[in-house]
Amino acid sequence: MTDPEENESVRTALSPGDIGLVAPRDFTSTQPFTFKTGQVLPGFTLRYETYGELNATRDNAVLICHALSGDHHCAGVHALEDRKPGWWNNLIGPGKAVDTKRFFVVCANVLGGCVGSSGPMSIDPVTGQPYGISFPFVTILDMVRSQKLLLEHLGVASLHAVIGGSMGGMTALQFAIEYPAFTRRVLAMATTSRESAQAIAFNEVGRQAIMQDPDWNHGNYPKGGGPRVGLAIARMMAHITYVSDASMDRKFGRRKKTSANGEAYNFDVQFEVESYLRHQGQAFINRFDANSYLYITRALDQFDLAHAYGSLEAAFAPVQAESLIVGFTSDWLFPPEQNRQIALALLRAGKSASYAELATDLGHDSFLLESEDLYALVRAFLERHESTAVDFSI
Amino acid sequence: MTDPEENESVRTALSPGDIGLVAPRDFTSTQPFTFKTGQVLPGFTLRYETYGELNATRDNAVLICHALSGDHHCAGVHALEDRKPGWWNNLIGPGKAVDTKRFFVVCANVLGGCVGSSGPMSIDPVTGQPYGISFPFVTILDMVRSQKLLLEHLGVASLHAVIGGSMGGMTALQFAIEYPAFTRRVLAMATTSRESAQAIAFNEVGRQAIMQDPDWNHGNYPKGGGPRVGLAIARMMAHITYVSDASMDRKFGRRKKTSANGEAYNFDVQFEVESYLRHQGQAFINRFDANSYLYITRALDQFDLAHAYGSLEAAFAPVQAESLIVGFTSDWLFPPEQNRQIALALLRAGKSASYAELATDLGHDSFLLESEDLYALVRAFLERHESTAVDFSI
Repeated sequence: MTDPEENESVRTALSPGDIGLVAPRDFTSTQPFTFKTGQVLPGFTLRYETYGELNATRDNAVLICHALSGDHHCAGVHALEDRKPGWWNNLIGPGKAVDTKRFFVVCANVLGGCVGSSGPMSIDPVTGQPYGISFPFVTILDMVRSQKLLLEHLGVASLHAVIGGSMGGMTALQFAIEYPAFTRRVLAMATTSRESAQAIAFNEVGRQAIMQDPDWNHGNYPKGGGPRVGLAIARMMAHITYVSDASMDRKFGRRKKTSANGEAYNFDVQFEVESYLRHQGQAFINRFDANSYLYITRALDQFDLAHAYGSLEAAFAPVQAESLIVGFTSDWLFPPEQNRQIALALLRAGKSASYAELATDLGHDSFLLESEDLYALVRAFLERHESTAVDFSI
Repeated sequence: MTDPEENESVRTALSPGDIGLVAPRDFTSTQPFTFKTGQVLPGFTLRYETYGELNATRDNAVLICHALSGDHHCAGVHALEDRKPGWWNNLIGPGKAVDTKRFFVVCANVLGGCVGSSGPMSIDPVTGQPYGISFPFVTILDMVRSQKLLLEHLGVASLHAVIGGSMGGMTALQFAIEYPAFTRRVLAMATTSRESAQAIAFNEVGRQAIMQDPDWNHGNYPKGGGPRVGLAIARMMAHITYVSDASMDRKFGRRKKTSANGEAYNFDVQFEVESYLRHQGQAFINRFDANSYLYITRALDQFDLAHAYGSLEAAFAPVQAESLIVGFTSDWLFPPEQNRQIALALLRAGKSASYAELATDLGHDSFLLESEDLYALVRAFLERHESTAVDFSI
């Protein structure tokens, strides 16, 4: 997903209804954690944020799951002078669609990530060096299992809902499958039950850009170093897949940089869209780790519910949650059809499932959109069949 | 465009109706050539091939224009053991849609290219080294003007038709605009009168992959050297844009390499589509020059008929040729709508223009498709209003 500051639809300053100052915390499990591969870590850390209060019956929690390049900071600001609020600040806050006056919102940086959670940049106690690519291979299931341990640590008895877009949608679906009795609602947007060959292909080109950069060095590089060129290339390319031809044409068209007078015959930046992409690449390498990018894109590519459970219907057989799946018409990375298939399979498996398709032209990143239609859908879904145990008076 | 050998729709062995052995030749102009930029070369060379015979009235020539990664070798084979015929061998040959028994077919590697024509790999007589990026900046108009000199050299009095797909379509349109009295038919497929921001963006990521590769060295590298990693990345990414999600899913889906047993938890090739892409990248760096890639993608990005002439209708005002524009439903690089706009502008400018849209699922590269529908369209268009000067008896 794009950086919130780059997303035209996300506010860049605090408004009434914003949650205000928030602070991340770390949860460290000291129990051995066994990955899907069978590999074991002696323990792990997840960096997370929470907004709102857990109620007396400990069942008003909403788990927010982030996308490939997202993190735990999904709402509010870390300092009042921050220009950049959390990535889903438009959706989450007091009185907003995910109402922090009613819900205890939890969001964690995924296992394998690079923003405080255990991942390839973590120090291997055996060597005293970053794990690099000796860190265990991470799957969406591992992300889900580690986040369940965090929720238990926080005293959550059950989830009012799990919500996510893109990879976050995969995570949300996997959560509802893995912990059916714990999960009352699942809301997955702009997602897929398994990537197409084209999506795998784009991820692979990004990985090759990273791994063929001599500074990758088989994953061994110091913190802050590494394959900056390769990671920037991967990000620039991926960014194109997050937006739409129409939105790029509206935002940039064929406009040239004022410095590129009319017909500048060279290979410097000429078109505004070039300058924008280069900025996207540079901004990303200052906040993301290349090995994490390899790990998380592999987790995306490997995610395949039908393959893992025999069929998509079999995958959803244990689900007890009500579900809402949302596709966006202009999303060509995880197109509406792939979202619709999830809802259909849930229905075929006898589950309560709805599918909504929103007409947007922002592409895959539409789930980050300022959209009253989306807010209304989310709000109504979270209120549906509301348990009386939820305290409306807060 | 994809390599012919990789294109499922192109024959890889000679068949009856194939043109057989062909050989490239070089045309060297010793007159100074002034580029659109005002830069001047003391002369230039175009490598080209011809098939069929020029008739007595010297007006049965058909100029074939190649795409970004194509070249002059569009039909037949260079040796009988060649597994790889010319890139449009399915369309061009005796009795084929572009019938070499009737037409004198000419195809040249573009100026700025790297397969025999003058370009950045040519030796600068002043330094004795390859020009690199000191070679003049090349535009589609320069490609057209240099090919016109080749046609004059060959004694061609006028073109029966100019035909091309993708960049070749741009070249064909520009030819009909620049030499209206010389051009009786123009057939442009899977093309655009100007690229969208998304197409520019993909080209820019490719250029960045090349230029940020330390082996690029500001364009100074020996023949056979240069930024092989960056060029391979650029090609892998571009290749995804030449095909469609549907065709990749049909060809590869999520199938894994047999060496990647079930769940291989590492960053080696796992999916067949990854292996295929890596092969595409490797094959390309053995036949293409990185600086030429920069030059030609810039020529593509800069091509903008509406901008150059005030409007698309104004651009087409001088055209005397009959025109046929063909779009392909699954082409998301230069989508049908962009092809349709060309035909509409030709009609608005009072020209004879037809638009045909072919339903295919091979994406942009559909113009290279084995398609009886396409062959019939091309054949009929070339026969339409046939001048009696053409000798049918050959």
